[in-house]
Amino acid sequence: MSISSRKSDLKNTQTSIVAPDTNLIAALQQKIDGKTKPLGALGRLETLALQIGLIQQTLSPTLKQPTIIVCAGDHGAAKAGVSAYPQDVTWQMVENFLAGGAAINVLARQAGIALKIVDAGVNHDFGEGGEGGRAGESGKAGTARAGLVNAKVAYGTANYLEQPAMTAAQCEEALSRGAQIVADVHADGCNVVGFGEMGIGNTAAASLITSQLSGLPLADCIGRGTGLDDAGLARKQDLLAQAAALYKGDGEPLSVLAHFGGFEIAMLCGAMLAAAELKMVLLIDGFIVTSALLVAAKMQPAILHYCVFSHCSHEQGHRSQLAHLGAQPLLDLDLRLGEGTGAALAYPLVSAAVAFLNEMASFESAGVSEKND
Amino acid sequence: MSISSRKSDLKNTQTSIVAPDTNLIAALQQKIDGKTKPLGALGRLETLALQIGLIQQTLSPTLKQPTIIVCAGDHGAAKAGVSAYPQDVTWQMVENFLAGGAAINVLARQAGIALKIVDAGVNHDFGEGGEGGRAGESGKAGTARAGLVNAKVAYGTANYLEQPAMTAAQCEEALSRGAQIVADVHADGCNVVGFGEMGIGNTAAASLITSQLSGLPLADCIGRGTGLDDAGLARKQDLLAQAAALYKGDGEPLSVLAHFGGFEIAMLCGAMLAAAELKMVLLIDGFIVTSALLVAAKMQPAILHYCVFSHCSHEQGHRSQLAHLGAQPLLDLDLRLGEGTGAALAYPLVSAAVAFLNEMASFESAGVSEKND
Repeated sequence: MSISSRKSDLKNTQTSIVAPDTNLIAALQQKIDGKTKPLGALGRLETLALQIGLIQQTLSPTLKQPTIIVCAGDHGAAKAGVSAYPQDVTWQMVENFLAGGAAINVLARQAGIALKIVDAGVNHDFGEGGEGGRAGESGKAGTARAGLVNAKVAYGTANYLEQPAMTAAQCEEALSRGAQIVADVHADGCNVVGFGEMGIGNTAAASLITSQLSGLPLADCIGRGTGLDDAGLARKQDLLAQAAALYKGDGEPLSVLAHFGGFEIAMLCGAMLAAAELKMVLLIDGFIVTSALLVAAKMQPAILHYCVFSHCSHEQGHRSQLAHLGAQPLLDLDLRLGEGTGAALAYPLVSAAVAFLNEMASFESAGVSEKND
Repeated sequence: MSISSRKSDLKNTQTSIVAPDTNLIAALQQKIDGKTKPLGALGRLETLALQIGLIQQTLSPTLKQPTIIVCAGDHGAAKAGVSAYPQDVTWQMVENFLAGGAAINVLARQAGIALKIVDAGVNHDFGEGGEGGRAGESGKAGTARAGLVNAKVAYGTANYLEQPAMTAAQCEEALSRGAQIVADVHADGCNVVGFGEMGIGNTAAASLITSQLSGLPLADCIGRGTGLDDAGLARKQDLLAQAAALYKGDGEPLSVLAHFGGFEIAMLCGAMLAAAELKMVLLIDGFIVTSALLVAAKMQPAILHYCVFSHCSHEQGHRSQLAHLGAQPLLDLDLRLGEGTGAALAYPLVSAAVAFLNEMASFESAGVSEKND
């Protein structure tokens, strides 16, 4: 799809993502209730099994080629001091992803999940040598380095303390490239996709987006990110209040997204919209990924039917986001790492939900007596 | 070990389980903190990695041949109406375990966990044909049916509304056989063991044990089990209050265990004590398994250092048990199935904790910049 047609689809028709048909609910529930266990005894796994059965419109869903898309991008505001880490950590961590040494590599391997590492807009040249396109080239996302999807929109966003983080055209490009990446993994057979991110300064962007789109006070949406101390947190709060005051847009989701960035958030937003259109199961990670979902859900509320909320982050603001969305996360392990780590850790639960639905015996097939009347 | 020597060990010396040496804490924490992530960003996984490193006294722990031991037993009190299901469901579910169709089979397969299905005292003959001993035979637990460990103490406990559920000798036999089963799996190379149970009426026994040993009011320890309605719950509360009033013992853990049963709870208790003595990682499941742990922890408080609390059950009383033990569960998914299902679902998190400790790059090795000062 072209960038402009995508935009008009999203803005005008609001129909590209539809909620799953609910006709199958009774049959799914009957299958779940017939399993050799007390009614409801598998708790949240039963809800998950029902959700996935509805998404796939089948009593026997399958999870194919689970993939986590990790988008990385740099933020102009990072130089203003919204993070405890230097901006170089973004590209260094991308190198760590490519070398297989980051948390998401370990956890994805452990859970049998493939990774797509995406340069959405890192302020660094990762070199060439792979197949596909180069930085800045339009069309299908290319590969500049083995294992790295080059979807770079620019070398980092502008500083929202001075000007909008990105232009409308850049925002659309990021959305479109995200959609293309999902279309590619879907074409390769994937039907369950998680989302992760890396970007020094991106909790600040997520805080601003969350406050703007949820109506929550900015202070409720700001946390310590990757490790600010009290003074650092106060400085971040002050800077973000300034940033929020500078925004003069119309409050529409894409306007907010473009103003505060980053490219990785916009690309994830486009990726999520495409994934739900393709009726995939979406594994939502933590605070930053959920900020991308807030944008997507403002545009296409039905996207939420396709989302599994992996975990509740330790980062202040994520709990507020989840409450705003009416979402109930699977895990609550005080994680605050990002990268898609919560999605990777929750995936075995999703897989377990599908497995019990497909593989458990029924009272009838196992010859087990049912409850006394 | 002989049954009587085991008992005197437990009662008199209280030293067979010792807390792990803590000298390694600093080195483990340094290794965790050196990984390419913000300090503490993996939350509960970091605590888990530290705990397992200490249990194994190494900076590079490994999890070998994870196994869940599922003990099944029948309860004399079941005929008094403490459960919504007929007693036959116990043996029918054991058959379901042996056929591979129960929830624990599916979830254990999914997580790569071996199962040991144990007849601790089911009111049923499962037939013969396998290797090993027969029902009632003393010594090493035998196998009467392929896939079933025959450790049957008797054909169900007595009804604690009329007399103690088991004799002291039966209780010791159950403890000893549980210890032997763990010794066997440990000898086969397992160093991480989960515990599960099946027994119609065993939430009632667990409620009575929990109230006696924790000092919590009985009403706080009674839930709906596998599906009682309001009238059934009121009846259960009434019956259990009668049962508690009939107990005239000294309140010592083994006295309480023997009085209220069941054989599967006693066998799990013996299994847990042996597992901690062998410095294995113990995966604790839900309400009934935790009642066995309450008995074990009263005898050997250091056992708690070896325990990973898998989940918080929906069954009323489990939350009280966890609070009483100061335990923080990994999952909270409204499960109330038993069988070890919570342990199976939590195992991937335990495995992930060990994996990140062993496999993640350090800031130094990956060339990633650390936090700004």
